[in-house]
Amino acid sequence: ELSSWSFYRAGIAEFIATFLFLYISVLTVMGVVKSPTKCGTVGIQGIAWAFGGMIFALVYCTAGISVSFSANPLCFPFYLFKFAEYVYMVLVKTGGHINPAVTWGLLLARKLSVTRALFYMVMQCLGAICGAGVVKGFMGKNQFNTLGGGANVVAHGYTKGDGLGAEIIGTFVLVYTVFSATDAKRSARDSHVPILAPLPIGFAVFLVHLATIPITGTGINPARSLGAAIIYNKKHAWDDHWVFWVGPFIGATLAALYHVIVIRAIPFKSRS
Amino acid sequence: ELSSWSFYRAGIAEFIATFLFLYISVLTVMGVVKSPTKCGTVGIQGIAWAFGGMIFALVYCTAGISVSFSANPLCFPFYLFKFAEYVYMVLVKTGGHINPAVTWGLLLARKLSVTRALFYMVMQCLGAICGAGVVKGFMGKNQFNTLGGGANVVAHGYTKGDGLGAEIIGTFVLVYTVFSATDAKRSARDSHVPILAPLPIGFAVFLVHLATIPITGTGINPARSLGAAIIYNKKHAWDDHWVFWVGPFIGATLAALYHVIVIRAIPFKSRS
Amino acid sequence: ELSSWSFYRAGIAEFIATFLFLYISVLTVMGVVKSPTKCGTVGIQGIAWAFGGMIFALVYCTAGISVSFSANPLCFPFYLFKFAEYVYMVLVKTGGHINPAVTWGLLLARKLSVTRALFYMVMQCLGAICGAGVVKGFMGKNQFNTLGGGANVVAHGYTKGDGLGAEIIGTFVLVYTVFSATDAKRSARDSHVPILAPLPIGFAVFLVHLATIPITGTGINPARSLGAAIIYNKKHAWDDHWVFWVGPFIGATLAALYHVIVIRAIPFKSRS
Amino acid sequence: ELSSWSFYRAGIAEFIATFLFLYISVLTVMGVVKSPTKCGTVGIQGIAWAFGGMIFALVYCTAGISVSFSANPLCFPFYLFKFAEYVYMVLVKTGGHINPAVTWGLLLARKLSVTRALFYMVMQCLGAICGAGVVKGFMGKNQFNTLGGGANVVAHGYTKGDGLGAEIIGTFVLVYTVFSATDAKRSARDSHVPILAPLPIGFAVFLVHLATIPITGTGINPARSLGAAIIYNKKHAWDDHWVFWVGPFIGATLAALYHVIVIRAIPFKSRS
Repeated sequence: ELSSWSFYRAGIAEFIATFLFLYISVLTVMGVVKSPTKCGTVGIQGIAWAFGGMIFALVYCTAGISVSFSANPLCFPFYLFKFAEYVYMVLVKTGGHINPAVTWGLLLARKLSVTRALFYMVMQCLGAICGAGVVKGFMGKNQFNTLGGGANVVAHGYTKGDGLGAEIIGTFVLVYTVFSATDAKRSARDSHVPILAPLPIGFAVFLVHLATIPITGTGINPARSLGAAIIYNKKHAWDDHWVFWVGPFIGATLAALYHVIVIRAIPFKSRS
Repeated sequence: ELSSWSFYRAGIAEFIATFLFLYISVLTVMGVVKSPTKCGTVGIQGIAWAFGGMIFALVYCTAGISVSFSANPLCFPFYLFKFAEYVYMVLVKTGGHINPAVTWGLLLARKLSVTRALFYMVMQCLGAICGAGVVKGFMGKNQFNTLGGGANVVAHGYTKGDGLGAEIIGTFVLVYTVFSATDAKRSARDSHVPILAPLPIGFAVFLVHLATIPITGTGINPARSLGAAIIYNKKHAWDDHWVFWVGPFIGATLAALYHVIVIRAIPFKSRS
Repeated sequence: ELSSWSFYRAGIAEFIATFLFLYISVLTVMGVVKSPTKCGTVGIQGIAWAFGGMIFALVYCTAGISVSFSANPLCFPFYLFKFAEYVYMVLVKTGGHINPAVTWGLLLARKLSVTRALFYMVMQCLGAICGAGVVKGFMGKNQFNTLGGGANVVAHGYTKGDGLGAEIIGTFVLVYTVFSATDAKRSARDSHVPILAPLPIGFAVFLVHLATIPITGTGINPARSLGAAIIYNKKHAWDDHWVFWVGPFIGATLAALYHVIVIRAIPFKSRS
Repeated sequence: ELSSWSFYRAGIAEFIATFLFLYISVLTVMGVVKSPTKCGTVGIQGIAWAFGGMIFALVYCTAGISVSFSANPLCFPFYLFKFAEYVYMVLVKTGGHINPAVTWGLLLARKLSVTRALFYMVMQCLGAICGAGVVKGFMGKNQFNTLGGGANVVAHGYTKGDGLGAEIIGTFVLVYTVFSATDAKRSARDSHVPILAPLPIGFAVFLVHLATIPITGTGINPARSLGAAIIYNKKHAWDDHWVFWVGPFIGATLAALYHVIVIRAIPFKSRS
């Protein structure tokens, strides 16, 4: 695996995707918090769209980077039949995660190797750091730090337990959607699933932001939280930082367990 | 049916889906009503997106949980042909309702058994109660109750008749969309129908919220109304509560009648 | 045609669809204009979503009501091949117009008979009147009239020529999108076209509202303008009313000419 | 090529599409900036929707204008197999660019001829000028100029380097998405790619607007910037104008290089 170009290509794609994700989303956050009146900006809802929309576009663009098979015309009927399986490969084995918690959930479900998972996580974190760094370059150091730098912290009025719970359930929503969207291998039954797949995944991110921006600013992505925290680099952001690693990993674990134990526990054999 | 694992799996999926639906949507409502100025929040439109978007994502994720057939490669051409029928099964027989009014409408059209319908409704209500309960846990009891707890009540300035009418027509829009999206069995004529299906269903919920949040807060889902009312538990919410059961069930009945009597009254035989 | 049940079924479907369209959209408008501060509402953008989203959902639900052919399993390969043509039939011949200007454009392109076109237009106008009437019932006569009743008028600061121009170009955008979405008959080349079709049609309506709400409130649908005007019934709405019939019909005519003369003037024969 | 009607038809389609794009988007901008309080308008987020939504609708409508092959029924299995390739042709060779930077990126990747690329760019710029001109006609010269005319300038508080960087990365996001959406030729692996294609391309435009409206007003489309600048025609718009040509062309070049060198460097041969 380490000698395959597609392995590194997928890593580079994770880096670029996470870089663009942080760049667009943190820049949107900065534009909103910078303005004295929120009505003259895209608003908090616009921030939620930026996060969710980028995940939609990037999952669409990045998924499948490392998939490979020769497109032999004679094999077309075979392809049609294999369609569901390839889509499964595309989304599960081949990048387009843009989020260490997603990679972790898929690792738990044995959808990719430990080596690949670690490599993806490192590239995601590096991309996130660079993306937030470019925003800081545009805004200037002083302004960036005054405005909070898009870093995740537990908001005043909520306990760290609330924040942790919000991150756990939020990541559950996201990873549950990813598993539902990539469960197409087992049967051809949900033919609409792979076609729409990037859309509900992006919407899941959008929806969790709508709900939990007032609590934690919404992490549900340790690379996003780490990138913003490193570039912001203030004590109060680091104090809460563990919440944005522990929460997403617990949430992703629960989603993987729910999917593997409950939803797919018994093969789809008995007709309903 | 009671001895089939897929029966219980579908019930658990209904519970989890309704839990996540109430959690995300009520938390979004709380975030908006908590803020003194709505411009610093995702706004009322953001609430509508939270309800509609969650239904989109959850119908996408949950539909088909209890469908089962062996994915025999040799049967693939058969599957292709059966595609429309399976999608019909997926959405109609197998969960992803997340709403007792939808279950009721489909029961009227004889799309699922009475046992299954009752089981789904109970699981939906339990999920809704738990979802609203978690939000109350995060917000604290005092704040949650001060802010109205996301419970449905008929707004000041409107009669209960107005509220009932709004719930009837709103649920009609939703259940009419569900029937249109799941009518794919009859013929292959609307091949685009099953692929997009979760999107217009989610949009229907979003649109009804845009219109009727100022009147009733928008129920069109008795489980959602019951869950919020039980956790909120104030007299004025209980006084209006019947509106959010009677309205949706009348609306769903009308949509089922419209679909069965008008739209599908005479088989699709005569060419237009 | 007059003796076919599918003819009347399509008419009833147009009535119900236009009724629901006016009900949801005018109620959303009322909710926004009623509030002293727009930030506590879904906002003007929410109004645009209500109009565009309803068109998306209703085109999805209503298209194909009157299409009919027997779903003989043996014909499946034939169906696959005929797919594009059926989708064409579905959208063009069979309702889901919800708008006299769309019906007019399709009539010009000889996509439906004069009898059918007139019947659709009458049913659309009747549905629109009932939809706006129900909103008036909910709001009360005084409040409804004070708030403008969702009627289209040319805004202060713009001439009637500006309003007419805005209606012409806006309807051009809509009908141009409808033609593009229903041009699937000619060749199988745009296989993504029929699947997404209701989405860009709905977006076209949304986008025109974003742009021209400040000028005319956005008609681009004579049934919608007529329904609101009849229920509102004030002189200044009637004074401008011709703009919302002449504009859309000119715009639809231009879109039909553009499509027939420029885009499809010469058959798709020479390879690019 | 110069003697082919499909060549000129594609050019006319580019003209009309860019005309409608500027008309709707600049009119939306005018509606927002005209109002003293942004809450009574569709808001800055509404502007982002106007730009992104129009690109979605127009890519959907315009793509494939110049594609041509005879729809021989006997060739249907062939069509199915050729599906991915035709979609590739549709989006790459045949218009629906609506943006000189997109045309430039595709030219670099040798997806269309220099003659065609230049012709498209000229038609795009002419369409943009006319679109902005019509808005000026509606608003009146004085009001239009007072409100900034929708022209792109680097905002106060940002250097021209910031603006250039924002344009480069923003165009990279757009052209990277276009390349990802049109890479379907190589293999059938991403079957969901062509079906959704216009949606992520539109979303990319929407997302870049969310992020960079506060910096440059967001160009990422030299035709859009030129059209608005010519109709506005004030010195401070012309001073910054080079940013909106140099930035997009650099961004498109980087996206083309990234796609050709990294993503497709080695054919999809080795299984991951």
